[in-house]
Amino acid sequence: MGQYTPPLRDMQFVLHEMLNVEAALKKLPAHADIDSDTINSILEEGGKFCAEVLYPLNQVGDREGCKYQGDGVVTTPTGFKEAYAQFVEAGWGALGMDPDFGGQGLPHVVHSAFMEMMNSANQAWTMYPGLSHGAYNALHAFGTPEQKQLYLPKLVSGEWTGTMCLTESHAGTDLGILKTKAEPVGDGTYRITGTKIFISAGEHDMSKNIIHLVLARLPDAPPGTKGISLFIVPKFIPDADGNPGKRNDFKCGSIEHKMGIHGNATCVMNFDGAVGTLVGEPNKGLNAMFVMMNSARLGVGMQSVGLAEVAYQNSLAYAKDRLQSRSLTGPKAKDKPADPIIVHPDVRRMLLTQKAYVEAARAFSYWAGLAIDMEHKHPDEKVRKENADLVALLTPVIKGFITDNGYDSTTLAMQVLGGHGYIAEWGLEQHVRDARINMIYEGTNTIQALDLLGRKVLADGGAKLMKFGKVIQDLLKYHAENPAMKEFCDPLAALLGDVQKVTMEIGQKAMKNPDEVGAAAVPYLRIIGHLVFSFSWCYAAGVAVKKLDSGDAFYKSKLTTARFYFAKLYPETAALLKQARAGSASLMELDVANF
Amino acid sequence: MGQYTPPLRDMQFVLHEMLNVEAALKKLPAHADIDSDTINSILEEGGKFCAEVLYPLNQVGDREGCKYQGDGVVTTPTGFKEAYAQFVEAGWGALGMDPDFGGQGLPHVVHSAFMEMMNSANQAWTMYPGLSHGAYNALHAFGTPEQKQLYLPKLVSGEWTGTMCLTESHAGTDLGILKTKAEPVGDGTYRITGTKIFISAGEHDMSKNIIHLVLARLPDAPPGTKGISLFIVPKFIPDADGNPGKRNDFKCGSIEHKMGIHGNATCVMNFDGAVGTLVGEPNKGLNAMFVMMNSARLGVGMQSVGLAEVAYQNSLAYAKDRLQSRSLTGPKAKDKPADPIIVHPDVRRMLLTQKAYVEAARAFSYWAGLAIDMEHKHPDEKVRKENADLVALLTPVIKGFITDNGYDSTTLAMQVLGGHGYIAEWGLEQHVRDARINMIYEGTNTIQALDLLGRKVLADGGAKLMKFGKVIQDLLKYHAENPAMKEFCDPLAALLGDVQKVTMEIGQKAMKNPDEVGAAAVPYLRIIGHLVFSFSWCYAAGVAVKKLDSGDAFYKSKLTTARFYFAKLYPETAALLKQARAGSASLMELDVANF
Repeated sequence: MGQYTPPLRDMQFVLHEMLNVEAALKKLPAHADIDSDTINSILEEGGKFCAEVLYPLNQVGDREGCKYQGDGVVTTPTGFKEAYAQFVEAGWGALGMDPDFGGQGLPHVVHSAFMEMMNSANQAWTMYPGLSHGAYNALHAFGTPEQKQLYLPKLVSGEWTGTMCLTESHAGTDLGILKTKAEPVGDGTYRITGTKIFISAGEHDMSKNIIHLVLARLPDAPPGTKGISLFIVPKFIPDADGNPGKRNDFKCGSIEHKMGIHGNATCVMNFDGAVGTLVGEPNKGLNAMFVMMNSARLGVGMQSVGLAEVAYQNSLAYAKDRLQSRSLTGPKAKDKPADPIIVHPDVRRMLLTQKAYVEAARAFSYWAGLAIDMEHKHPDEKVRKENADLVALLTPVIKGFITDNGYDSTTLAMQVLGGHGYIAEWGLEQHVRDARINMIYEGTNTIQALDLLGRKVLADGGAKLMKFGKVIQDLLKYHAENPAMKEFCDPLAALLGDVQKVTMEIGQKAMKNPDEVGAAAVPYLRIIGHLVFSFSWCYAAGVAVKKLDSGDAFYKSKLTTARFYFAKLYPETAALLKQARAGSASLMELDVANF
Repeated sequence: MGQYTPPLRDMQFVLHEMLNVEAALKKLPAHADIDSDTINSILEEGGKFCAEVLYPLNQVGDREGCKYQGDGVVTTPTGFKEAYAQFVEAGWGALGMDPDFGGQGLPHVVHSAFMEMMNSANQAWTMYPGLSHGAYNALHAFGTPEQKQLYLPKLVSGEWTGTMCLTESHAGTDLGILKTKAEPVGDGTYRITGTKIFISAGEHDMSKNIIHLVLARLPDAPPGTKGISLFIVPKFIPDADGNPGKRNDFKCGSIEHKMGIHGNATCVMNFDGAVGTLVGEPNKGLNAMFVMMNSARLGVGMQSVGLAEVAYQNSLAYAKDRLQSRSLTGPKAKDKPADPIIVHPDVRRMLLTQKAYVEAARAFSYWAGLAIDMEHKHPDEKVRKENADLVALLTPVIKGFITDNGYDSTTLAMQVLGGHGYIAEWGLEQHVRDARINMIYEGTNTIQALDLLGRKVLADGGAKLMKFGKVIQDLLKYHAENPAMKEFCDPLAALLGDVQKVTMEIGQKAMKNPDEVGAAAVPYLRIIGHLVFSFSWCYAAGVAVKKLDSGDAFYKSKLTTARFYFAKLYPETAALLKQARAGSASLMELDVANF
């Protein structure tokens, strides 16, 4: 019943009119050849694949789910396997990957845009290649030349898929207490024993081999996170020719019944002396894990951009079509028995909230994609460092803020449809159920908030935050003389000032009592989220203001949405600042027994 | 896997220590005999039924769902029918109903408390008797003596169940455009023809007969809401002895696949010249409908109180039990590999948010239950009117604010469990899915907000609102000299002042532009919700302050929770006031084509 049209115009606005990617990429030797037209063609073709192949499988996947067939065998929903074969055949999986291993070497920012569309079309399906990407990143960064040669080409082509095996039933957030063991057998391999849970894409029928990256402890490992190592554990051990050989000693024991993402198999994996090889140094597995994890966190943000977009499109179509009641200011569709519900102010609030959030989230996450390209490929080390700092600072904001907003957006989209939103037929309730996991996995949003405030902001005395502040101040200076921009610049400047103050206050309190960090972290992350979105809407308005005379209604729409953002969403910061300042006392006072 | 313990101590705190129900009910001749011990015994026994019979069926109901067996037949999940037989046998359905028709005549406030527990245990199941109650209310208020004699005793005993058949596929919120026809045949009966959708409990196998209350149009009816009449349409037409006789000409055509409340059958009902009798006057069906609807709206609020409570209990149990990471201020459970997660400030924020919301919602909705008793049974007409006004004013707040908070609460409860919250086994994700419908049915929360601001506040120039303001001022005066109450009274007084100001401002703008009502309504309802909750927490704190010396930690817990409410939740009003004042311009500016 639903519909999805790749929002190419909006994507192009961000890529070309806000980020000027062509000019930015010209400075990176690896990407100097790519131009706007090429990017647009790729996204247009990619969008077709998403809308025509993946999207029609989204409701099927939800309805059927994956099935555990016994004896470790998991099957995916009707059509998933065939769509994956098409994906591999067309080379979509190799888009952003290293040409040295068969990848197409396109910039991360283009890959980000493609991922948005894939997630709009089918998050559960997209997780299969998404997890492969995480495994690819870890191996690419830490694998030996032999490991890379053996595994990367097949992960790049998509013939094989990958996973991240971190969580155990007693150890989710707290990886330091994980128990899975790795015993060296003297031939350079290890035997891995233990049970992992919540392994997305852990077992399925879509690829010829599945390459698990497994966190485990060596026999002499120190306790805690300093005693964790990372291992490659393939489902089929590659033979001398690199083809899938002997079946390794582990199995999927069962799959979870979940609220959403039914089309992705969430597996219990039982490793029973499985053969693995070490990735990176012993006891340094967490470093490699963080490479996967940071990539995964940006990916999760993109999942919520995608879901928020498709939910918005469907609620908008319904609001234009559905006739109920008359406008409070008099009938608008006089020839019809009632007005379309988009005439009602609160329906517009629900639509514009989604629109303002998803468009800012898109700009934010594409910007992060470009910053990652600069971090990895810019010839100037200073620029690389500058971008690395901004990406490190804002990764938890992308994960936390965009996924919280994504859940709220899909919930609003559902609300626009009233009772029709609650039934499966229209697809909206699936988007809500799918969006809900994004607030949990790859580090809950509380963990993101602690990462932001504790490790990214307070740990360096606010140095990274000041770098972002400088970016904002540059924009404010640029527009300082333009009266048309005052309505957007003033609230942005005010919030930047508030952020500087509240950060110092929390920092001072935290020196006396570390619980102050935990007490302030979640509202603080939302404040920084609004700072980014205020920046983004101010930036977009600046572009739109210049082009208003073109007569293209698209620019007026941007300006109106920016105005809506500052009038109706930005005010949340007034509450958040109070909450962030309210301290830990009222949280910690109650004895556990008296809850 | 889940657990539910009726929160009797908390319920008693509200009933006896906050509301003093025994003393209040003494003033109502119909209830003068009931004492606190009796109320406590009823709730204790009722709680056992809920926890031992209904709760174990909650996950079963979700997993199995209702099944459409073809030819109009719907079966309920395993155990539902048997539990219903027990419910009828024990007389639980007759608790709050009129003794003239076999009811036990207990006060509404006691019935409210029982409904909370039923909904905690199993919302989908509870909807079957819940809908009967709505049908009972409409018939009790508008039925002829013959209709009452024929239908009420069976609805009271629960042998028969009832429904409300309002919605049609093109007419949900906008009942004025409904098309179902009722043709008189000259013998005092009518033939009803049309299709109704989203009919909760519309068909099932739990009772011997189902009594539908159906909105339809007479042949000569004026268009719009002034041409709607209400009809009784029984599944089996009662014979001369009042027993189920001939099968009436209508059928359930199918049931919906929904996000939640799987155990309740949501039916498409096809009426094909079905026999019905008129309830109340021709073309005045909406009056009767509003009697059902207001009762249903309070009932929906109670559904969310129930779900928020059970979700809180389960997330609390998990947070005490689950060991992950160490407290930021140093290990708390040194003998264990990690601390229970309840040591972490943000886990406490998630728990206390649920606790503060559900306890205030309980107090608010029991208070409304008692006000309904006063409205209907107080000998003094002035007192009846006073209470009727308060109930009318606050019904949309109960429905809108409590169900929005209930969804947020269950979402937070899920978040406390991390990945375990997302899988079906633990039951939390079901609570979220069930809670989601409460924001939609019986009038979406936007409709509640419009009802509050437009019809209940602005339409009488704020007269009803001022009555509630007087209640608050009385409390503030009572505590004016108590320094221990200042921290609670000050924010309550400040918010009352803000409400008075913002109401006037909106009223003035609305006179120029009716869209201002639609633009402000939703944040306005949340502001009034916080005014009620601030009042409630101030009231509860006043009770607790007096009893602190008793040494009972329960009172300290109330005080700490009140403090948390004002420190961390009340600040939302700062944002809401700005949003309510931001006007309609940014909502209405965008052309439909440019969304």
